[in-house]
Amino acid sequence: MKLFSFWRSLATYRVRIALNLKGITPDEVIDINLPQGKQREASFAKINPMMAIPALIEDDGTVLFESLAILEYLDETHPNPPLLPKEPKARARVRGIAQIIAADTHPLIVPRVREYLAHEYNIDEAGVMKWGNHWHTTSLKALETVLAGSPHTGRYAQGDQITIADICLAGQAVGAAYFKADLAAFPTVKRIVDEVNKIDAFARAHPLKQPGAPASV
Amino acid sequence: MKLFSFWRSLATYRVRIALNLKGITPDEVIDINLPQGKQREASFAKINPMMAIPALIEDDGTVLFESLAILEYLDETHPNPPLLPKEPKARARVRGIAQIIAADTHPLIVPRVREYLAHEYNIDEAGVMKWGNHWHTTSLKALETVLAGSPHTGRYAQGDQITIADICLAGQAVGAAYFKADLAAFPTVKRIVDEVNKIDAFARAHPLKQPGAPASV
Repeated sequence: MKLFSFWRSLATYRVRIALNLKGITPDEVIDINLPQGKQREASFAKINPMMAIPALIEDDGTVLFESLAILEYLDETHPNPPLLPKEPKARARVRGIAQIIAADTHPLIVPRVREYLAHEYNIDEAGVMKWGNHWHTTSLKALETVLAGSPHTGRYAQGDQITIADICLAGQAVGAAYFKADLAAFPTVKRIVDEVNKIDAFARAHPLKQPGAPASV
Repeated sequence: MKLFSFWRSLATYRVRIALNLKGITPDEVIDINLPQGKQREASFAKINPMMAIPALIEDDGTVLFESLAILEYLDETHPNPPLLPKEPKARARVRGIAQIIAADTHPLIVPRVREYLAHEYNIDEAGVMKWGNHWHTTSLKALETVLAGSPHTGRYAQGDQITIADICLAGQAVGAAYFKADLAAFPTVKRIVDEVNKIDAFARAHPLKQPGAPASV
């Protein structure tokens, strides 16, 4: 298995956490330097035409893309520990929380979008930071309401089992820090993120622990 | 079962298609008029704190949100006809195609984002149309490459079985038309969309067939 990764990619961070939780070590981790535009080079565009990471190549050559699709695949092919509950309504809640982050928030702040705002609409750095802060804050408010108001929330987002919702929350917290959205206003989100960050599989997957990462952001 | 819907919502269109395919008729379809901002009113924000549709309330009161989470739920609770293949790599391909649309494209062009571009950055109508066209075109290029280049593509996105990938493609086509991204440049996408639009479950779910819709857009 080969993983295409970049230290700062929050979508790849999700996959790294899942691989660690499942005890899977990729044979190779290939660096796709996003600020250098490596994701747009022909060699990588051939692998993932969306020109985005993560991408994962299985041993038989099958290419997988989109982080949540990869997480579900890893969960189906390596069921222990499970990353989804068993009951359909609980699974829908976990997937819904994950998608508030992975669909409604993160795609709005990825490099290609920030670059397009800057180049096509002449939005300056402060304007782009405001954009990132706004979308993180919008979804953090929703996530806090969903999590704080539910009897299904436990030690983690869904009871006491680590799920893909927690994996996405860990990434949301890193994104929020980058865009100066203070998690203190969202105590349930913060409590869960603090809790999962104690887990070795999360800690080892953190962006700042990857090759090429700076000492801090 | 109650469905919160609006004729123009492409994410709700996905859920309507799935309900039709499964032969499920909601007891009630509640109109959430997006241009009037009904999604931000307290009565709906209490149901889905993300203030977005679709949302679905099950008979026991459980609230489900995020379209792909709802599609997976419907598939788990009403397995026939299945909306995902059985084999994990095929499932990952279907989910990956669906997420190129439902995560990497559609969240960029929903009303709240278009309104924020207009109000916060003074981007005019033409600028917002360009934005929508750009993100649709970007992902249509990727989707065409993924679909045209694969032996797994059949009559539909994954062989000859209707999946959530086709459901998302149908919505992408409506969004592309709205933002003047011509599908003619993406013949495999166009072929599949033309094919699924022949199916009654898709045709009945079309935005223009819903209560409140105009005769054309």
